[in-house]
Amino acid sequence: MLEHLHTPCLLLDETVLRANIKGMADRFKQIGVPLRPHFKTAKSIEVARILQDHGAKSWTVSTLKEAEYLSSAHFKDILYAVSIVPQKMEQVMALSRNGAQMAICLDSPEMADQISSMKLDGPAPKVYLEVDVDGHRTGVTTHDQRAIETAIILSRAKNLEFAGLMAHGGGVSYAANGKAELEAAAEQERTTTLSVKAMLQTAGIACPHVSIGSTPTALFGTSYEGVTDVRAGVYMFQDVFQANLGMCALEDIAATVLATVISHAPHLNRIVIDAGGLAISNDRSCATQRNDCGYGFLSDVDGYVDPLLYVEGVSQEHGYITTRDGSSLPFELYPLGSQLRVLPNHSCMTVAAYEGYNLINGNHEGQWWDRCNRW
Amino acid sequence: MLEHLHTPCLLLDETVLRANIKGMADRFKQIGVPLRPHFKTAKSIEVARILQDHGAKSWTVSTLKEAEYLSSAHFKDILYAVSIVPQKMEQVMALSRNGAQMAICLDSPEMADQISSMKLDGPAPKVYLEVDVDGHRTGVTTHDQRAIETAIILSRAKNLEFAGLMAHGGGVSYAANGKAELEAAAEQERTTTLSVKAMLQTAGIACPHVSIGSTPTALFGTSYEGVTDVRAGVYMFQDVFQANLGMCALEDIAATVLATVISHAPHLNRIVIDAGGLAISNDRSCATQRNDCGYGFLSDVDGYVDPLLYVEGVSQEHGYITTRDGSSLPFELYPLGSQLRVLPNHSCMTVAAYEGYNLINGNHEGQWWDRCNRW
Repeated sequence: MLEHLHTPCLLLDETVLRANIKGMADRFKQIGVPLRPHFKTAKSIEVARILQDHGAKSWTVSTLKEAEYLSSAHFKDILYAVSIVPQKMEQVMALSRNGAQMAICLDSPEMADQISSMKLDGPAPKVYLEVDVDGHRTGVTTHDQRAIETAIILSRAKNLEFAGLMAHGGGVSYAANGKAELEAAAEQERTTTLSVKAMLQTAGIACPHVSIGSTPTALFGTSYEGVTDVRAGVYMFQDVFQANLGMCALEDIAATVLATVISHAPHLNRIVIDAGGLAISNDRSCATQRNDCGYGFLSDVDGYVDPLLYVEGVSQEHGYITTRDGSSLPFELYPLGSQLRVLPNHSCMTVAAYEGYNLINGNHEGQWWDRCNRW
Repeated sequence: MLEHLHTPCLLLDETVLRANIKGMADRFKQIGVPLRPHFKTAKSIEVARILQDHGAKSWTVSTLKEAEYLSSAHFKDILYAVSIVPQKMEQVMALSRNGAQMAICLDSPEMADQISSMKLDGPAPKVYLEVDVDGHRTGVTTHDQRAIETAIILSRAKNLEFAGLMAHGGGVSYAANGKAELEAAAEQERTTTLSVKAMLQTAGIACPHVSIGSTPTALFGTSYEGVTDVRAGVYMFQDVFQANLGMCALEDIAATVLATVISHAPHLNRIVIDAGGLAISNDRSCATQRNDCGYGFLSDVDGYVDPLLYVEGVSQEHGYITTRDGSSLPFELYPLGSQLRVLPNHSCMTVAAYEGYNLINGNHEGQWWDRCNRW
C-alpha cells in the first residue's frame, strides 16, 4: 500500500503512536500529576487531539509558531519553554490577547528586569524561572543568589504572573546507563528544582508551580512529590536514541522514513537509498551510545527491523546502508526500486524535514496529517 | 536593519553571493567548458537568474521537485543527478512533456534494463551512466564489465538517449589537504571518468558527454580536457567546511543564520542563542578537519567574524557558544537580546531548514527570496 508514495517521505504508525501516548498518559494518571506534553516533536494538531483524548489539558512548545498553531486549534494553555527575549514578547502578547494562557521562562535578573519593565498589551503571561539541574541547557544554578534576585523581580512584576520553577534534566538523563542511573537522573531533576523552591520560600517568595521533565525522567522517576506538571515529547514517536537508552523497543518507534533502493554497490558492500542527510537528518547523538545506529536502523515496509543493517553514512540525498558486522550485504533481499524504512536516530530532527505525516496502521491509514515547522 | 527579523532566520548576502557566482563563471569562461550549476544548495529561482546572467544555460538538481521549480521558471535543460528508479519516471516524463530537456542517471545493467523497457510518454530523456571515481557515492567502477553492459543497453534503448558519463569526485576532494591534493583529486575525477569513456569507445559505444564536478574539483582542476560540463553548487554560498578545505575565506560565506542571545551561563562559560539543531543543522562534517568549528563559527550582525567563538553544541532550539581556546567568554560584548550570525558548517544542510532568504547587502536588500525544499 506504500508503493504510490513518492520517496523519501515520512510515515507515522498510528497504532504505535497511540500506544506510546496511552502508556505515558496512564502512568501519570496513576501517579496523579498532570502531563504537559511537549509539542516540539509531533507538531501536529491531530496528535494533540489524541493527547487531549488521553487527558492532556496543557502544552509545552519550543517555538512560538507551535504556540500559534496550537492556539488556532483551541489548545490554549501553553508554556513556551525556551528562554524569552523582549523581541518575542509581541508574539506572546498577540497569543495572549487571542485567548491563549501563555507562560514564558527566563533565567536571569537582567532579563527579568527587561521583561517586567515592558509595556505589555494584554492579559499578563505567567513566567517561570528556569533551573539548571545538570549543566545541559539554560537556567539558574542552585544556591545562586541570582535565582532569588530573579524571582523577586518576577514576583513583584505588575505585567507578569510569577508561576514558579521549571527544569529539564536532559543532560544527566540522556547520558544515563541503565535503570538505576535513569532513576537517579529523574530524582536529581526533581530534588534540585525543589531545593531552589525551598531557597525561594526561605526568602519569602511563593512558588506555586514546579514543572520538570524529559522523556527519560518522565518514564523512570520514582517520585514526583512536589512536582505540579511533567513535560515530555519524544516519547510519542520514540527513536533509536531512546531505544538505546532503554525507553522503548525499536518496534515502538512510530515515525519512520520510507525510502527507495536506488543503487547497489557490491564493491563497497553498500546499498544506496534516496534518503540522505536532508531526509533523515545528520543527527549523530547515538554515536556515544553502545548500540550506535549511524544515521538510522532499517526495517522492511511492514516494519520488521533487519538487525543486520544500518545507515553508515549520508550525503544530501543519498543514504548508505551496510551491515553492522561487516558481513556481505544480502542484496537480493533489497532489490533496486524496492522500499525500506529508516528508523531515525533522533526523531525530533528527522520529522522536521517534512511538512506532514503519511498515516499507516490504525484508524487513519492513508491520511495525511500536517505539521507546523520553522519559526 | 536586522532587528525587525524574527530569529532564527536565514540571511543571504547578495554581494558575496554574486562574487562567488562570478568567480566560478569567469573561471570556466576562461577554461572554455560550460558550467552546469548544481541547484541543490541555493534552490532559489532568483539565484538561478544570477547564474543565468553569468552564462549558465543548463542545470543540475538533486530532487525532482527542484526540477519542477526550475522548469516552471523556464529553466529547461536539467540533469537529475541522483540514480533514477522506475517509480520516478512519471515525474521525469511530466517535466519532459512540459518542455524540459530532462537528463537522468543510473549505474547498473539491471536499472538500465528496467528503464529502457518502460513505456515512456513524451520526448526521450537523456540518460547518463554514473561512474564511481572514488568510492564516495554511486556509480560503476572502472574496468567493470557492467559499465559496458549498461552502456550497451542504454545506447540501444528506443525510449532514451544515451548521453554519456557523469561523475562526482566528492570523496577524495572533500578529504584533500592542500592545493596539491586538491589538484590531484580533480585530475583523478577527470581521468577516471575518461578511462571509462575510452573503455566504452573500444567497445564501440559513442559517449558524447562527460559531466564531472564538485566545488573543490571545479575550483582546483588543472585540466578539463575531454570534459563537456562541470557541476558544482555549494560554491555559491560556501561554508566553514569549504573554507577549511581552502575553497574560500570565512568572509566569502554568503548564507548565515541570524540568531538572538537568549541566555548567559557563566558557570558553563556559555552564551546560548535561539538557533539550535533545527536552525543550524546537526551536520558535523568538519569534525575531522583541522579547524573544527563545532556547529558553526560566529560573526556579529555586520558579518565581522569573531575568531574566539564557536557553537560547541546544539539542542533542538538552543545553540551553545563558547570560546575555542577555553578562555572566559566576553559576555559584555554579546548581551542578552543581542543578535549574532552563525556561519554554517555545511550550508546545503543549514539553508534547507528555511523557506527562503532574507537578503542583505546588494541590490535586493530587505527582500525575501523563496526556496524549493523537500521532495
